[in-house]
Amino acid sequence: MVEFELIEELKSLQGDDSRVNLGIGDDCAIISQRTGYETLITTDLLLDGVHFCTEIDSIKSIARKSLAVNLSDIAAMAGRPTAAFVSVVFPRNWKPQQARQLFQELVHAANEFQIPIAGGDTNTWSHSLAINISIYGETEQGKAIRRKGAQLGDQICVSGPLGGSIFGRQFTFTPRIAEALWLSKNAKVTSMIDISDGLISDLGHILNESKVGAEIFTEKIPISEDVGQFVDETPPLDHALSDGEDFELLWTMPPAELEKILKNKSCPVQIFPVGLITAVPGCHLVDERGLKRSCSLKGFVHKLDNFDP
Amino acid sequence: MVEFELIEELKSLQGDDSRVNLGIGDDCAIISQRTGYETLITTDLLLDGVHFCTEIDSIKSIARKSLAVNLSDIAAMAGRPTAAFVSVVFPRNWKPQQARQLFQELVHAANEFQIPIAGGDTNTWSHSLAINISIYGETEQGKAIRRKGAQLGDQICVSGPLGGSIFGRQFTFTPRIAEALWLSKNAKVTSMIDISDGLISDLGHILNESKVGAEIFTEKIPISEDVGQFVDETPPLDHALSDGEDFELLWTMPPAELEKILKNKSCPVQIFPVGLITAVPGCHLVDERGLKRSCSLKGFVHKLDNFDP
Repeated sequence: MVEFELIEELKSLQGDDSRVNLGIGDDCAIISQRTGYETLITTDLLLDGVHFCTEIDSIKSIARKSLAVNLSDIAAMAGRPTAAFVSVVFPRNWKPQQARQLFQELVHAANEFQIPIAGGDTNTWSHSLAINISIYGETEQGKAIRRKGAQLGDQICVSGPLGGSIFGRQFTFTPRIAEALWLSKNAKVTSMIDISDGLISDLGHILNESKVGAEIFTEKIPISEDVGQFVDETPPLDHALSDGEDFELLWTMPPAELEKILKNKSCPVQIFPVGLITAVPGCHLVDERGLKRSCSLKGFVHKLDNFDP
Repeated sequence: MVEFELIEELKSLQGDDSRVNLGIGDDCAIISQRTGYETLITTDLLLDGVHFCTEIDSIKSIARKSLAVNLSDIAAMAGRPTAAFVSVVFPRNWKPQQARQLFQELVHAANEFQIPIAGGDTNTWSHSLAINISIYGETEQGKAIRRKGAQLGDQICVSGPLGGSIFGRQFTFTPRIAEALWLSKNAKVTSMIDISDGLISDLGHILNESKVGAEIFTEKIPISEDVGQFVDETPPLDHALSDGEDFELLWTMPPAELEKILKNKSCPVQIFPVGLITAVPGCHLVDERGLKRSCSLKGFVHKLDNFDP
């Protein structure tokens, strides 16, 4: 089977999509931005041995995660995805059936997330599998929620239990696109990010960009049941604070706005208020006795802004 | 040196760009499409040992080529590039100085091509260097020149001498953006592609998409001086017909349009008329005696449309 057949199969699995003027099959794809909207673009390169492990993880999981982590970045700005672009380099020793399955699973995942694959690139080489995905999305003009914008006195919230995603949730999570759109439509959200490197690390970006500090109330942190599967001696709380790949939303909003959405019975978002934006630089943890300790923004310097979107 | 410093340096080397509403430093980049325009998107994954060789080629060459081959796809549709997105995975054994140099050279190349780097992703792993570039560009609504559109009787033209790009031109070529824009503005171009896989192979895409055939007059093929450097027994003409990575434009236009631009003294494009669009399927070579032979569209099935844009 040559690459050509793979692509024909990909095209046939997809059908047309009104969001794409010209998809797979020319030098570039063509997309029109809707009037009154802005374009969001994010890109992530996922690697065997780093973001997944071809010896352990299923092709289905790998394909789905590759799309989902990128969609999570679109969610983090309260955007709506328009189209995906997929570059794959296959190991030369892969069988055609494996390559075909990866393509099929990429299309299945794209269908699950209701986004067309509008283009890409394929190659083979003597090294490991690598998948680059770029997602092109949209937001109403000026409505993207940035990392910058958290205000003194804002509540800090997360959208779900944290920690232990390594036991499976890193592959099965659903990008919080619907939740982010609801929040941006129904309340004033001052800043937002998705938790990819751990709560404290990603909060660090909001604090840094917004030039504010934070107090996090440890007893309010929702700890995922998954954390119970660890056999190490790390306190469960620490997993919730610093494990990566939760892909929940982390956002800030004025207290009155939080109160408003907590009362809204049609709110589709799980809301866990975990702290407050303060004027004291850095992040401080406050325990159940009210005792405070400063908390290093671990991993912060590794997360490269939209250079690691 | 951590990645963070690399990115800060990249940002400082660039300055602001009015085409980008929000660049490096958030979950996504934000770009606005101009009214009356459409967006072009292309993506290419360049690999050590496939598209370049880190043991032989300079970091400067590798960085420049990675951007240039993508820009050539924008040129192939007569588009204007808006912004680039760069995903890099560094081999774990690279020294910080090498990583820094790659970033610097990416910025230098982006400056040469007058395009901002608006986002990306960086990683390290135990395998070889891989660079994915996505370019976001624009074209006036409905003005993109596609592969589909060649008409019976059209002239087939190329924009420069072909063959032997492996001796250096694969790294030093300039994407034909200005030339393609001039052509699309000053004449009726019915179809266009950039020559990345070889004249005959890429002509195959035009023929296939346009559902026409072609006659190529072998004595009219411009053969690059570089072909003289080969020590093999392959006829020079065959190199010009099938070597890859020339990155010249290949286009079709009605004879009257060709005549018009050949007379235009301010035309910035080198124009080599090499053949005619015919009704007979496939591609036929016509030699200086008028003898015809059919020519297999070698490599054709390997070129994956905008899945290998």
